[in-house]
Amino acid sequence: MDDGRMVALRGGLGVVPGLKLAGVHAGIKARKRDLALLSFDAPQVCAAVVTTNEIKAAPVLVSNDHLAKHGGEMRALVCNSGCANACTGARGDRDARATARQAATLLGIEPTAVVIASTGVIGVPLPMDRVQKGLERCVAHLEGGGKSASDAAEAIMTTDRVPKLSAYSFRDGEKKYVVGGIAKGAGMIAPNMATMLAFVATDAPMSREVLHAHLLECVDESFNMISVDGDMSTNDAIYAFAPVGKREAPGGFAGALRRVCLELAQAMVADGEGATKTLAMHVSGARDVTQARKIARAIINSNLVKTALYGEDPNWGRVIAAAGSVNAGVDPDRWSLHVKDVLWVDVGAIEVLSEAEAREQMEHAVVALRLDLGIGEAAATAWGCDLSKDYVRINASYRT
Amino acid sequence: MDDGRMVALRGGLGVVPGLKLAGVHAGIKARKRDLALLSFDAPQVCAAVVTTNEIKAAPVLVSNDHLAKHGGEMRALVCNSGCANACTGARGDRDARATARQAATLLGIEPTAVVIASTGVIGVPLPMDRVQKGLERCVAHLEGGGKSASDAAEAIMTTDRVPKLSAYSFRDGEKKYVVGGIAKGAGMIAPNMATMLAFVATDAPMSREVLHAHLLECVDESFNMISVDGDMSTNDAIYAFAPVGKREAPGGFAGALRRVCLELAQAMVADGEGATKTLAMHVSGARDVTQARKIARAIINSNLVKTALYGEDPNWGRVIAAAGSVNAGVDPDRWSLHVKDVLWVDVGAIEVLSEAEAREQMEHAVVALRLDLGIGEAAATAWGCDLSKDYVRINASYRT
Repeated sequence: MDDGRMVALRGGLGVVPGLKLAGVHAGIKARKRDLALLSFDAPQVCAAVVTTNEIKAAPVLVSNDHLAKHGGEMRALVCNSGCANACTGARGDRDARATARQAATLLGIEPTAVVIASTGVIGVPLPMDRVQKGLERCVAHLEGGGKSASDAAEAIMTTDRVPKLSAYSFRDGEKKYVVGGIAKGAGMIAPNMATMLAFVATDAPMSREVLHAHLLECVDESFNMISVDGDMSTNDAIYAFAPVGKREAPGGFAGALRRVCLELAQAMVADGEGATKTLAMHVSGARDVTQARKIARAIINSNLVKTALYGEDPNWGRVIAAAGSVNAGVDPDRWSLHVKDVLWVDVGAIEVLSEAEAREQMEHAVVALRLDLGIGEAAATAWGCDLSKDYVRINASYRT
Repeated sequence: MDDGRMVALRGGLGVVPGLKLAGVHAGIKARKRDLALLSFDAPQVCAAVVTTNEIKAAPVLVSNDHLAKHGGEMRALVCNSGCANACTGARGDRDARATARQAATLLGIEPTAVVIASTGVIGVPLPMDRVQKGLERCVAHLEGGGKSASDAAEAIMTTDRVPKLSAYSFRDGEKKYVVGGIAKGAGMIAPNMATMLAFVATDAPMSREVLHAHLLECVDESFNMISVDGDMSTNDAIYAFAPVGKREAPGGFAGALRRVCLELAQAMVADGEGATKTLAMHVSGARDVTQARKIARAIINSNLVKTALYGEDPNWGRVIAAAGSVNAGVDPDRWSLHVKDVLWVDVGAIEVLSEAEAREQMEHAVVALRLDLGIGEAAATAWGCDLSKDYVRINASYRT
């Protein structure tokens, strides 16, 4: 990684040359933007990480089909919010394919060169007439730059409060490249697999296999390490695009992709449904990364940890109880807990910080904890949010 | 099972001959009863199912030790609420052993013939002077019957709103026996293992091995099939007692024990922290019981299902999404969903009930759903509760 040469940019996907975007109100939702279109000037290699839920939405299955046929030369992506097109049977499949076909006709490309994605309520069919009209409006508005990327990021939002964009430039020798992304996700986010929507693109050419390998590695450290409510969606997917190129990616790409994925993942957690604060849970002293990740995720997924965080209650017992609950090999006599860089509970469960000192640490918007397992050298970080009364309010009345 | 000969009794553990109980206020909590004592006139065989959390509280470890030494001839059980004596290091171990020793001295028995249990806040030491005085008060109040069982059931409560008691009589030929139990648990209940406290006793003599086998079977169908918040405690345990006897249990024992365990488990769910309603999730048409159980538990554990239940929102997509999330082999083209005995969503995700009809079904205090997997003949039921704003309020301020 040559972080020193990476530069954060504004504009998310809008910074990527050769990519035009639009986000419009098609009428799938009552008011807000609900349809996004990404159109690449030239064919792109495309890599995907999709939900492992056995119940997969039609757009996930149809995109999978298109990527199998055309994955080395994709040209566009369509994403709607307001309707998941999941559990919609044969009609759902037809509607998903029709969406790709309509976009392809308007753009003058092959239908199988289109990736599609949907997010929203399960079990409701897509209003296809509105999708068609919305796509026409999208095509009329296609352009590069930050404004259109922001429109597209807005159009894929469900319960999100803010659009999520991230972009970095990096250098390989004299040559400068960019990586940009947009994402949505504020609920139904679990650290199991791709459980949200994120679209990432770069102007750095590489092979499809190389892009896929880089994406998998970054997803494991970012999107797979966040949780809002431990649920796994039928629809969620990450698609990454790059110009068709020679085998290897330019130097610096891995680092820039990682930063974009991390920023988008952390933005999701910060915008978690009803969230008032973030928990950055670092597990160190682990036997290996697998153990560190498993324990970090168990902690951020615990409803008791999440409610304690919400109540700013320094209830460290819930943290260690969650760590022990997943049979990952916690040694009860070796762990210690730190808040930021301060020792909170020492080996042998001896409290070092007073209740008042610990409570003060819980009042920050981002609470950074470190659980040292005292076993080995490996570490991992997971990001979660608190569980608030607002989470319940939002999800008890999502459809009404 | 000879259910026809089983009779439900009032009084929980108080119906068991040869068992005296007490529940007093020892001052571990500010006001309410917080210390329970069970004392058997004669030695009992004792079987245990305890938390699988790697972080086990001192009373769980010390009881395990006592059962290894004296498991065929146990005489008493002490349980306090208000303090979990978990993550309390060497002092926790000393305090747990001292509790057993104090009770043993007062009762004139061996310290290792005493089972101990604790529930409450993690990381705080037991106030041993109060435990000693409380035990003296318990011994002075020991008696059989429903009132003392109710006092004991109250003394083990934490956030529970009601004490939980269950008892049945059964007949083996001319001989009549009883099984009684008390339990606590309204949060930190996950369907992984024994994740609450329950104490069960019978006057039906049997060997320790037989009692243990019966207990395991009943726990799998009852306590392991409920969830309030998916968290697993450091302290939770089920202890069952029976008079020392010949190998086999009397006919009818299995059925009566099952009923007592089911009633106590369902009482826990109905009293779930902040719960306003119960979900009885039946999964049928499964390949085998393991698959049916895994899927039923995934559904009752989903925060999105739980909040939809709270909002009385007939959002069936969340049920099927939760079913698909655990890689248990759901066939997306075969499932159907029923509410009570009415078909709600047919094979192929075709809605049969209208939104209004389905919503009406969600308004009941107990919502009974059946997901048929359309694969085989096996079935299982899990019980969960909704996730309400009150759950968050209770758990955000548990210590304050």
